[in-house]
Amino acid sequence: MPGSLTPALERLAGRFASMPGIGRKSALRLAYHVLEMDESEVREFADALLCAKESIHICPVCMNFCEGALCPVCADASRDRSVICVVEDSKAVKAIEDLNEYRGLFHILHGVISPVDGIGPEKLKIKELLARLTPEVREVILATNPSVEGEATAMYLSRLIRPLGVKVTRLAYGLPVGATLEYADGVTLLKAFEGRTEI
Amino acid sequence: MPGSLTPALERLAGRFASMPGIGRKSALRLAYHVLEMDESEVREFADALLCAKESIHICPVCMNFCEGALCPVCADASRDRSVICVVEDSKAVKAIEDLNEYRGLFHILHGVISPVDGIGPEKLKIKELLARLTPEVREVILATNPSVEGEATAMYLSRLIRPLGVKVTRLAYGLPVGATLEYADGVTLLKAFEGRTEI
Repeated sequence: MPGSLTPALERLAGRFASMPGIGRKSALRLAYHVLEMDESEVREFADALLCAKESIHICPVCMNFCEGALCPVCADASRDRSVICVVEDSKAVKAIEDLNEYRGLFHILHGVISPVDGIGPEKLKIKELLARLTPEVREVILATNPSVEGEATAMYLSRLIRPLGVKVTRLAYGLPVGATLEYADGVTLLKAFEGRTEI
Repeated sequence: MPGSLTPALERLAGRFASMPGIGRKSALRLAYHVLEMDESEVREFADALLCAKESIHICPVCMNFCEGALCPVCADASRDRSVICVVEDSKAVKAIEDLNEYRGLFHILHGVISPVDGIGPEKLKIKELLARLTPEVREVILATNPSVEGEATAMYLSRLIRPLGVKVTRLAYGLPVGATLEYADGVTLLKAFEGRTEI
């Protein structure tokens, strides 16, 4: 269709459409919006993209994204080092931190075991988790999402960790099954924390 | 909340959240997605943003976004130069071009008259439209969105153009009232084109 989209606009829309949850029509809408933004705003956006990618790396202890040597949670001496909450991704850490209730540490797996997607345990940060299980650690809370894969990953980890004499708990099924942790409301998430059971 | 968001992540999420239709949670999701993209992909995204803004300008004839001297529609000698379809924005041009039915030219107003938002006729590309109304032009199709502002803008233009002896038509109300043209399905849009009436 002549004139409907210029190559540069098509390219930008394609970039937006490659992001999760953005369909073709929304991507076009966003691309058109960029054309209407001030040039300084567009530069700032491009720079924010590059900066985020360049300055953010993975915390060598908990595997969360961070900008300093350690992430703020691992660097915080007041956190309870005897509890490690294991989550799938950083979004879950944010959801839990926003509760302002949990005072232990985190460990981010960067995914879940999913044979369908070709993701085996070796692709997750499990080695790094096991290396953290010093005698100081009394409890590991498995807070993977309440999905089939999250559940399977929790079972897998529980079988690995229990023999080491560490208490292993799982968040209570107060969470709506099939949902992802990041969209849970605070109250539900808190209930799930309180009702966590040993597995 | 310590460790929930790094400054660079917060900045990037803020950029996404400033785009239309992207809320705070979606913006965070997109920002996290950027961290998981390859560095080359992020560079390509940033470059696509800058390129779109730098290489795209406004066609001096129809006011649509374009990359060459003229937009492909204005440059196409086979288009019917006796009809000009007046639309609010480029998204509407794309919706109409995708029908592959309309063979006339376009004129993009870059907005609608909206006193509430402080947008008077002088902020739209109306002068430029009037300058195009040579004797060659037999019909002006007013295809602003079927909203209150779109309707008012069409009435305003009709009063300006009719005295010049040019036929002025308006897309038929086959379009659902209150919607925007870009989300109309092809059949509805086509019906609206066919049933256009003189005003």
